[in-house]
Amino acid sequence: MPTDIEIAQSAHLRPIPEIAAKLSLTPEDLIPYGRDKAKVEPSAYRDKPRKGKLILVTAINPTPAGEGKTTTSVGLADALSRLGQKTCLALREPSLGPVFGVKGGAAGGGYAQVIPMEDINLHFTGDFHAIGAANNLLAAMLDNHIQQGNALDIDVKNITWKRCVDMNDRQLRNVIDGLGGRMQGVPREDGFDITVASEVMAVFCLATSLTDLKERLGRMVVAYTRAGAPVTAHDLKAEGAMAALLKDAVKPNLVQTLEGTPALIHGGPFANIAHGCNSVSATDAALRLADCVVTEAGFGADLGAEKFLDIKCRAAGLRPDAVVIVATVRALKHHGGCPKAELTRENLEALEKGLPNLLKHVENITQVYGLPAVVAINQFDCDTEAEIALIRKACDTYGVKVALSQVWAKGGAGGEELGREVLRVMEEGENRFTFAYPDELPLKEKIEAVARKVYGADGVSFAPAAAKELEKLESLGFGGFPVCMAKTQYSLSDDPALLGAPRGFTVTVRKVKVSAGAGFVVALTGDIMTMPGLPKVPAAENIDVDENGRITGLF
Amino acid sequence: MPTDIEIAQSAHLRPIPEIAAKLSLTPEDLIPYGRDKAKVEPSAYRDKPRKGKLILVTAINPTPAGEGKTTTSVGLADALSRLGQKTCLALREPSLGPVFGVKGGAAGGGYAQVIPMEDINLHFTGDFHAIGAANNLLAAMLDNHIQQGNALDIDVKNITWKRCVDMNDRQLRNVIDGLGGRMQGVPREDGFDITVASEVMAVFCLATSLTDLKERLGRMVVAYTRAGAPVTAHDLKAEGAMAALLKDAVKPNLVQTLEGTPALIHGGPFANIAHGCNSVSATDAALRLADCVVTEAGFGADLGAEKFLDIKCRAAGLRPDAVVIVATVRALKHHGGCPKAELTRENLEALEKGLPNLLKHVENITQVYGLPAVVAINQFDCDTEAEIALIRKACDTYGVKVALSQVWAKGGAGGEELGREVLRVMEEGENRFTFAYPDELPLKEKIEAVARKVYGADGVSFAPAAAKELEKLESLGFGGFPVCMAKTQYSLSDDPALLGAPRGFTVTVRKVKVSAGAGFVVALTGDIMTMPGLPKVPAAENIDVDENGRITGLF
Repeated sequence: MPTDIEIAQSAHLRPIPEIAAKLSLTPEDLIPYGRDKAKVEPSAYRDKPRKGKLILVTAINPTPAGEGKTTTSVGLADALSRLGQKTCLALREPSLGPVFGVKGGAAGGGYAQVIPMEDINLHFTGDFHAIGAANNLLAAMLDNHIQQGNALDIDVKNITWKRCVDMNDRQLRNVIDGLGGRMQGVPREDGFDITVASEVMAVFCLATSLTDLKERLGRMVVAYTRAGAPVTAHDLKAEGAMAALLKDAVKPNLVQTLEGTPALIHGGPFANIAHGCNSVSATDAALRLADCVVTEAGFGADLGAEKFLDIKCRAAGLRPDAVVIVATVRALKHHGGCPKAELTRENLEALEKGLPNLLKHVENITQVYGLPAVVAINQFDCDTEAEIALIRKACDTYGVKVALSQVWAKGGAGGEELGREVLRVMEEGENRFTFAYPDELPLKEKIEAVARKVYGADGVSFAPAAAKELEKLESLGFGGFPVCMAKTQYSLSDDPALLGAPRGFTVTVRKVKVSAGAGFVVALTGDIMTMPGLPKVPAAENIDVDENGRITGLF
Repeated sequence: MPTDIEIAQSAHLRPIPEIAAKLSLTPEDLIPYGRDKAKVEPSAYRDKPRKGKLILVTAINPTPAGEGKTTTSVGLADALSRLGQKTCLALREPSLGPVFGVKGGAAGGGYAQVIPMEDINLHFTGDFHAIGAANNLLAAMLDNHIQQGNALDIDVKNITWKRCVDMNDRQLRNVIDGLGGRMQGVPREDGFDITVASEVMAVFCLATSLTDLKERLGRMVVAYTRAGAPVTAHDLKAEGAMAALLKDAVKPNLVQTLEGTPALIHGGPFANIAHGCNSVSATDAALRLADCVVTEAGFGADLGAEKFLDIKCRAAGLRPDAVVIVATVRALKHHGGCPKAELTRENLEALEKGLPNLLKHVENITQVYGLPAVVAINQFDCDTEAEIALIRKACDTYGVKVALSQVWAKGGAGGEELGREVLRVMEEGENRFTFAYPDELPLKEKIEAVARKVYGADGVSFAPAAAKELEKLESLGFGGFPVCMAKTQYSLSDDPALLGAPRGFTVTVRKVKVSAGAGFVVALTGDIMTMPGLPKVPAAENIDVDENGRITGLF
């Protein structure tokens, strides 16, 4: 089997107007970026009805074995296209920094990829650079305001806004800046996040128009005054220039899968301190332009699907028609305690022990959220019939079918079983969609609702500072916001070592902060890394480009 | 008169393939970025002969009154088009950061502008973001190398590489990073430059191919070992990934003037610590695609033209056909000591006192460099006939004609007198082009040659550290490089207060450093600011965008 980049580079890239035509878009509806990428003008879809069916692809709690969620999403979209559906993907844009670390690219894999793979993984259409520039303009205006007299009386010890860079650069996590004398800024503790962790990214992904974007940017809290009052980007008169920097970036990007299915790839917020799914504008555009929309949420269903449903669907008035839960036999055996070296051997005992992880997510989707679900097993050669049968039987008790997926090796043809089952549940399944909690619940009870219903926790313990901050946020008028849980992705609990479906645990909320522009309150259950580092041998060392611009070493 | 942005926004933007056709380029030669911007594929011009005439636009030493060098360049190109010449502009890309400071946009003015003005001033085609990412990837790899064991034995007190951001952000000038404990990097003094000051920008602008770019990037010195040996980007295995980040950025960007003249706008290095002119690839492409190429150099002729000729022409094998020296009557009166409030009144005495500034540049171009020259007076309503006559008479003694330019108010029609004179000197003038110094002169003598011949200095005094560093650089094999003078732009001397054409001064070189990838040795005559700050009321506060993406407050 060739590598991902070899498959991607040998693919036949259709001209982007040809892909756009599949969504009934004309060349006038596009802003081309090269021959194989384009932004879509909002005027091309804004006034059409949202008539597409929305299919969310999520997964069990991630394991080192890998589940293949993006690959399954791409393959499912290709399969639906093959089954005659006018289909569009809506995915997150990959972050640039991690490409140079351990991770390589992030645009699906094998024969289920979006292309041009290198462009999507590098600068793409420049959206993340624009987000970084807007973030850093606000930071520069904030520190300049203090330097020039600090009329707002900003407390330099209580600045929450950080600068950002789209790079894995641990050296910038904690810095002291403004050094060098009175004309060189104000010395203070500071730090950098990776661009995808900026609140500008979350705002960008939740905004429904340029005007909404500007208003959300203006509401972002960047610091507090010495009297403790929030200082916003609007107080610094920054939102107009920030929105000007984002005026093109807000338009969704159109590319294609290896099989020519249209894909809108747009926005990519962190899935812990933010909500982890592509932009509302991409999802919205896809629903107005296609009959079937396949989209994806970050991490496992406890984080990704929960936020997709409780934050994004709530904010954007979306109602999913089906949820696909991706698992692999290997990953379920890992959840059952099987050592890594033995994952390729049949092990029904480990599988049975690990299955509850999958089943808890199935239960959440069908019973907490009331949505039709399909389990997709991303198949490997080493999976045995007995193992698959065991999974089928367990899922049957929830009335949920298992579909095998071989899209990595076979592209859309390997996803037809999954595609047919998705179409069936959308037709026949019962959809009683509801959120995990209503708007009017106090913030504390919202956090408890997610922990109890979605994670299976006995309850939540709040660190004193977190409890106090929640009260403050309620008093500042942020009580109506949904909550955004920042928790380990590896467990349903807040302890990464608790695999499977743990019971008898409580979740500890250590810290709380408001993302007032995005419109949610972040509850942190532990230290969340918002600036990754490079490994001992960074992937960058092996990346190269030849005179013709052909890149190697991206995988 | 409407504002620049009002003129730009009401302009008729022709589709970019129509502009490209004027250079005999087909749509297949273009990589579109929207409908009115495109990158040009090197394959479209690489194999054609360099048959265009090269016209450099430079100026007297800048004054607060403004000279209008870019405006004159744009207007001259439009005038040459009107006179039937197949013309192409080659200009620098504006930096994003200063747009939000005091400066506003930088794409010409009045009726002599390049458009789309807002795009060119904001992200354009993303080149500077790519340069910033390449710069910061190298920085992250450098600090990661130290964190992961420092096999190269890099001296953390002798790291010369800085991170960069395309923002006016004084808070980042001097920082301590790597704080927070042993897993968070290595605490050290550090700092940020604005992106245009990065050596990656200089390398980008001097590279002749992607392979040359990669080799130059690899040669960049980023630090020294504890034994004092240079550590390069190649030692960190960074140049391949950096070049991959720049693979699209290196292709020149095609836009248009208000009158539809093609303009290649590409690259924009600082004009003090770097060479201050657009990319070699844009100039080279223009010379292969057009009959007349109008290009521009930063600051006054003592810095901009000197570096254009001694660094860029030397590196790229270019030979200019004519040089236009831009001045205004007001600016010359300023050089003659006239107070700002009185610049609009006739003052022949101040003009006579200020004229030597212009005449020294005329002398340099014609006698030091042996090139045909034209003086362009960027005319204002307040200029009197007697003042113009005085300038004409003075220039006559050098055999150089004065052409009046009214391109700001009249576009290309206002530049026809200048255009005709440029065509005449290219036809009739004598061209004995030579550099100010030969390659083989020692670095110290190269600096002295520039100071004596170009600045009119009596000599150069070298601070002990600078003298020592020059010896070290000679011994490291960098002696064959040209020198890049970092000096105040406001005076021919290194003292910004010495206006006109000072005599009897020496230049003091305080510091010296090598830009081994760019291929020059920088000699600093004072503190050069490589990270600007925002003013009390940043321009950003007044920038806004409406729901249709229309920007206001950029000027």
